Amino acid sequence: MTTRTGRVISGITVTADGYTAGLNQSEERPFGDDGGDGWGDKLHAWYSETADENQAEIEQMTAARAFIMGRNMFGPVRGEWDRQWNGWWGDNPPYHAPVFVLTHHAREPQPMDGGTTYHFVTDGIEAALAQARAAAGDGDVAIMGGATTINQYLAAGLIDELRLHIVPLTLGAGTRLFEGVPTLELEQVSSRAASLVTHVTYRVLS
Amino acid sequence: MTTRTGRVISGITVTADGYTAGLNQSEERPFGDDGGDGWGDKLHAWYSETADENQAEIEQMTAARAFIMGRNMFGPVRGEWDRQWNGWWGDNPPYHAPVFVLTHHAREPQPMDGGTTYHFVTDGIEAALAQARAAAGDGDVAIMGGATTINQYLAAGLIDELRLHIVPLTLGAGTRLFEGVPTLELEQVSSRAASLVTHVTYRVLS
Repeated sequence: MTTRTGRVISGITVTADGYTAGLNQSEERPFGDDGGDGWGDKLHAWYSETADENQAEIEQMTAARAFIMGRNMFGPVRGEWDRQWNGWWGDNPPYHAPVFVLTHHAREPQPMDGGTTYHFVTDGIEAALAQARAAAGDGDVAIMGGATTINQYLAAGLIDELRLHIVPLTLGAGTRLFEGVPTLELEQVSSRAASLVTHVTYRVLS
Repeated sequence: MTTRTGRVISGITVTADGYTAGLNQSEERPFGDDGGDGWGDKLHAWYSETADENQAEIEQMTAARAFIMGRNMFGPVRGEWDRQWNGWWGDNPPYHAPVFVLTHHAREPQPMDGGTTYHFVTDGIEAALAQARAAAGDGDVAIMGGATTINQYLAAGLIDELRLHIVPLTLGAGTRLFEGVPTLELEQVSSRAASLVTHVTYRVLS
């Protein structure tokens, strides 16, 4: 019998009203109608404009040993893989580890520079997590997003720790974290203010 | 020409998913299905169990010079005032100032001990705010809640400062702060962690 030491963590930037992206997401505006440039400039000002203040949280974002993301976060291609889309992050993505992409459309693994390989998982969130755990060994698995994917993992009780980066903005519509997720008991593990964000880390108790 | 020095502030306890009360609110369970006793024990543990840590925020809650609340926060009576309901807060309520209650049913002002008087306003949120501002002089007006009332004031652009007390719990359903409120630009004025809560104060810019 083995003891699993790695955790399943998830971190995401949310507005004060809990949104992670606005309406009308597209390839040109992956974060949709967010009141900014559509690339999340307002949501992500905390790490683009004040990175020095937030170095620990920025490093945490890619510190896991395996990653899971929804196809909507991976890219704008819908339906069949009718073009060679390899993510938003260029030839050398910041993950440096296996990234499991949830999709309904099978595709061969896509190795990238720097140790990142995109694996495409067609048999659901639990299968993806099993593969990610095996790949991570005793390291953490990170559920990267988007919120729709995180909500599925939360609703299934599969996330141990949730890191919210709460930013001073409301969107009123779009993709909302916790949408469709039932009651959760949380423990506030840490909470820290920086100038453009409040970082709150919760342990999910049940 | 006079300069108004008092602000319109609002403070409320919200879950990590933005709810201020659960479903099925009633006289016996004013906070509805909140996973606790229905009296908000889980929502309000931060000030019932760790008051010493949160003295400044607790004092702020009743520091305004006039208050506004929705009828749902004032009490469980619906429709006509068919009984002498004088709020949840006993003979000497913690407001010590005029409290303007939004209602569709006229009622004479109700003086209480300690300086609180309940005034019943039937002509809408702007009329209530005008009366509260006149009563507050150069002091602050507090929009006390519930969230439905705060959301109306936010949507109308009438709140200057919003104080959220974010607690480690999600409800998944109920009354949600920011529901129906469009995009707001906020400025994070302060953010402070205590053991059972994160306090974040926002200035509403637009």
